[in-house]
Amino acid sequence: MTDQSSAIETWLQENAERRLESLKAFLRIPSISALPEHAADCRAAAAWVAADLRSSGIEHVEVSETGGHPVVYGDWLHADGAPTVLIYCHYDVQPVDPLDMWESAPFDPIIRDGRILARGAADDKGQLHLHLRAIEALMATRGRLPVNLRIVFEGEEEFGSQNLDAWLVANRDRLRADVAVISDTAFFQGNVPAITISLRGLMYCQVDVTGPTVDVHSGGFGGVVENPANALARIITGLKGPDGKVLVPGFYDDVVPLTEADRAALAALPLDEEAYRLEIGVPALVGEAGYTVLERRGARPTLDVNGIWGGFQGEGSKTIIPAHAHAKVSCRLVAKQDPHRIFALVRDHVLALAPVGVRVEVQNLHGGRPSLTPIDHPATRAAARALEATFGRAPVYLREGGSIPVTASFESILGLSTVLLGFSNPDDNAHAPNESLVLANHETGIRTVIRMFDELASTGLG
Amino acid sequence: MTDQSSAIETWLQENAERRLESLKAFLRIPSISALPEHAADCRAAAAWVAADLRSSGIEHVEVSETGGHPVVYGDWLHADGAPTVLIYCHYDVQPVDPLDMWESAPFDPIIRDGRILARGAADDKGQLHLHLRAIEALMATRGRLPVNLRIVFEGEEEFGSQNLDAWLVANRDRLRADVAVISDTAFFQGNVPAITISLRGLMYCQVDVTGPTVDVHSGGFGGVVENPANALARIITGLKGPDGKVLVPGFYDDVVPLTEADRAALAALPLDEEAYRLEIGVPALVGEAGYTVLERRGARPTLDVNGIWGGFQGEGSKTIIPAHAHAKVSCRLVAKQDPHRIFALVRDHVLALAPVGVRVEVQNLHGGRPSLTPIDHPATRAAARALEATFGRAPVYLREGGSIPVTASFESILGLSTVLLGFSNPDDNAHAPNESLVLANHETGIRTVIRMFDELASTGLG
Repeated sequence: MTDQSSAIETWLQENAERRLESLKAFLRIPSISALPEHAADCRAAAAWVAADLRSSGIEHVEVSETGGHPVVYGDWLHADGAPTVLIYCHYDVQPVDPLDMWESAPFDPIIRDGRILARGAADDKGQLHLHLRAIEALMATRGRLPVNLRIVFEGEEEFGSQNLDAWLVANRDRLRADVAVISDTAFFQGNVPAITISLRGLMYCQVDVTGPTVDVHSGGFGGVVENPANALARIITGLKGPDGKVLVPGFYDDVVPLTEADRAALAALPLDEEAYRLEIGVPALVGEAGYTVLERRGARPTLDVNGIWGGFQGEGSKTIIPAHAHAKVSCRLVAKQDPHRIFALVRDHVLALAPVGVRVEVQNLHGGRPSLTPIDHPATRAAARALEATFGRAPVYLREGGSIPVTASFESILGLSTVLLGFSNPDDNAHAPNESLVLANHETGIRTVIRMFDELASTGLG
Repeated sequence: MTDQSSAIETWLQENAERRLESLKAFLRIPSISALPEHAADCRAAAAWVAADLRSSGIEHVEVSETGGHPVVYGDWLHADGAPTVLIYCHYDVQPVDPLDMWESAPFDPIIRDGRILARGAADDKGQLHLHLRAIEALMATRGRLPVNLRIVFEGEEEFGSQNLDAWLVANRDRLRADVAVISDTAFFQGNVPAITISLRGLMYCQVDVTGPTVDVHSGGFGGVVENPANALARIITGLKGPDGKVLVPGFYDDVVPLTEADRAALAALPLDEEAYRLEIGVPALVGEAGYTVLERRGARPTLDVNGIWGGFQGEGSKTIIPAHAHAKVSCRLVAKQDPHRIFALVRDHVLALAPVGVRVEVQNLHGGRPSLTPIDHPATRAAARALEATFGRAPVYLREGGSIPVTASFESILGLSTVLLGFSNPDDNAHAPNESLVLANHETGIRTVIRMFDELASTGLG
C-alpha cells in the first residue's frame, strides 16, 4: 500500500458512518422517473447529487434541463496529460409496485444481513453514490483527481431515456472524453467481480401479410386462397432453422468471430444449466448449434418472434380465413452487425419467402447497435486490475444478451468506448420488491473506482 | 303434359295472385331467431306454417317444442309402396343489420325487376313457401301426394340449430324416411339450375404452445430458449406444403377420389376465375397442385389457420419472447374423411413436429362430417329430371366448400341421404341487405317440387 492509498484508506475508514448516512439519505428520495407525481422527487434527487459534487470540489456542476427529468453534469479537468473519463450512472429508480411484497418501506432504507434494502440500492443510486464517495475521498485526501472527469448522471433511465440522446447531441462539445465508464451492471452470480464487455444490439421489425379484402369463410374459400396466417408461419419458419441458425442470407457476414480467448472466458463462468432451465420453466434449453448457453445468450446473434396475431382469437371456433396476419420479429445483434443493414437483409428474405397469393410488407420499428469493448482494451484492463486489487480476485468477463441504449449512444454520438463496471448482483432484486445492495460491494467498489482512476491515469489513453 | 299435370298447372295459374299474397304474408313475420325480442315472431311464423300445412290436408301437424324456437312437424303417409321423403327448410331468418343499407323495409316485401325483396325471401322462407304451395296444389287437385311425406321446418337454423339434434334424436321414430330433401341452397351463378351434391366436413382444433413460465426478455434469453411463436410457426408450416398438400400422414387415406365424371361435371361449370379472384381481392388464386379451383374449393380437403396469437400485439416494439402462442387450425373434409380420425392424425403430427424446447397441446374444438349424395343417386336423378322438365335445362352439380350441419345430422341421426335442391341464387343477398328471390324461381320451383315427388314415386327407393 502506497502512502497515498494508505491516506485515502484511513480517510475512508474515518468517514464510514457519515458515508452510510449519506447513502441512506440519497435512497430516501423517491425519484421514480416513470410516475409524474414523483417529478419533484426526481428534481430533488438531482439537486442532492449536484450539491454533493459541488461540495467535493467538482466544477461546472449543473442540473441541466433535458425537457424531462434533468441530467446532472459536472467536470474536473485539471489532470494534464491524463485521460478524460466520462462517468455515467442514473439517479432515477423503478416504481415500487407491488408494494405489499416489500418487507420494508422501499424509501426507508434498512440494513440487514450485510445488505442495504431500498428501491434504487442496486439500480442505480447505490452505484452512483459510490462514485460520489470515491470522488470525495480523492479530492479530500489529494486535492485532485488522477484523471480528468466528466460526470453525466441521468434521471430518465428507467423511463426510456427519451431525452438523453438529444441532450448528448446538444452537449457534445463539453462531453469530449477518451472512454466512458458506466456503473449500472452486475457482478456474476455468487458475487464474483465482473466486467460486462459486450451488449447485444437490436433490429425490430413488423411483418404484415395481407390476403383477401375481408375475412372469408374457410369453407367457401379454403383451398382456393392463400391463408395469410399460414403464409406468415411459412415466412417465419424460413427465417431461422431448427438448428437455431438464422437463415437470412448475409446475416452473419459482419459478426466478429469469437476468439479462443473469448470462448475460454465465457467457459470459465460457472453456470448451473439445470438450475437456469428450471428457473425459466422450459423443458430444454435450445439454440444455435455449436455454441454454449452463455455464448448463445450473449455473444451470438439470434432471431425471435416477439408477437404474432391474425384472425380469430376468441373462445371456440370461427371458420374464417383471416384477411391479414402480423408478426413482430426482432434480431439480437452482436458486433459489428449494423441494425439498418440487418433490417434490409431480413426484409429482402421475408419478401423472397412470401407466397404468391398474399401481399407482404416489412416495417422497421426500432434498432440499436451492439457494443463490444474487448477484454484487452486498455480501459477494460485498467478496470480489471482495479477489481483484482480491491476485491482480491480477477474479474470474469460477461456478455449480456440485452441492450443498454446509452452505451450505443455514447459510441454513436460521442465516439466513446464504454467500460461496463457495475457492482450490483444478480440477486439484488433490481426492478423488483426488496431491492438491495451488498454493502461490502458499495464499500469496496469505492476503492475499485479510486484504483481504476489511478490505473487509467497510467494507460496510454488520451 | 299429362292430364294430371295439366290440371295442377291450371290450378296453379288460377291461384297465382293468392299465392303471391301468401308469400308476402309469410315474409312479413320478422322471425329473426338470433334476437330474443323476436322470439314471439318466430312462434308466430311457426304457427303460420302449421296452419298452412293443416289447411292443405297435412296430418299430425304440430308446433313441436325444442327448448328454443319450435320445429313445425307434419306428415302425410298414405302413398302405400311409394318412398317416404323428409322435407327440411327453416322459417327463421338472419338479423337485418345494417338497416340503413336496405332499399326497402326488410319485412315489408316489394316486387321489383322480377324479384321479391325481403329478409328471408331466399334464405329460407321463400323456399319453404314453395314447398307449402306444391303440397297445397297436389292435395287440392289430386287429393293426395305421390309420395309419403314428413315435414321438418326448423326455426333456429340462423342461430346455430342448437336444439335440432336433440329433437331429431327424440323424434327419431316418427322421422323414418328413405331420403331427405333440403331446399336451402342456390342455383349456380347466372340462375343455372343446380343440385348441390356434396358439402365439406370440418375438423377444428386449437394448438397451444407453451415455453417459459412468463414472457421473458428477448435480449436476456434470445438464443437460449425455444420461442413458442417460432415453434408454432414451424408446426403450422409442417402441416401443409407450399404446393397446398396437407402433410399430415394418413390425411388423404379416406378421401373418395374424384371420378372422371365428377371432374367433368365440375369442369362444365362456367367460372370466371379472374372475376372471382378480383372479388376476393387476392393477388392470385392458389391451392392444391393438380386440381382446378372448383375442385379445390368443394371436392378436396384442405387445412387453414383460422386464428393465431401470442406475445406482443400492440403498437411499437416490446422485446419479449412470449410465454405461449396459440393457433386455431381447421381442416375442411370431404367424403369419407372422419373428423375424429382426422383430429387424431393432426394432433399426432403436431406433436411430432413440436420442438423439444416447448410443450404443445392440441384440443379438438368442433367437427362435422362431410356429406356426398352422388350424381347417380336415384333421388338426385329424380330431382335432376324434375329440374330439367320444369326449368328447361339439365342441372349442374355443385360441391360446396362449407357445411350445412343438418345434412350431417340427417345422416348420422336418421341414416338419411340428402338431396340439396335449392332455388335461390348467388346474387340473392342472403344474410345481407336487400335480400331477394327471383319470383320465377319460386313459381317454377313449385312445379319442380311437384315433379320431383312424381319422379321419386317411380324410383326404387323405399
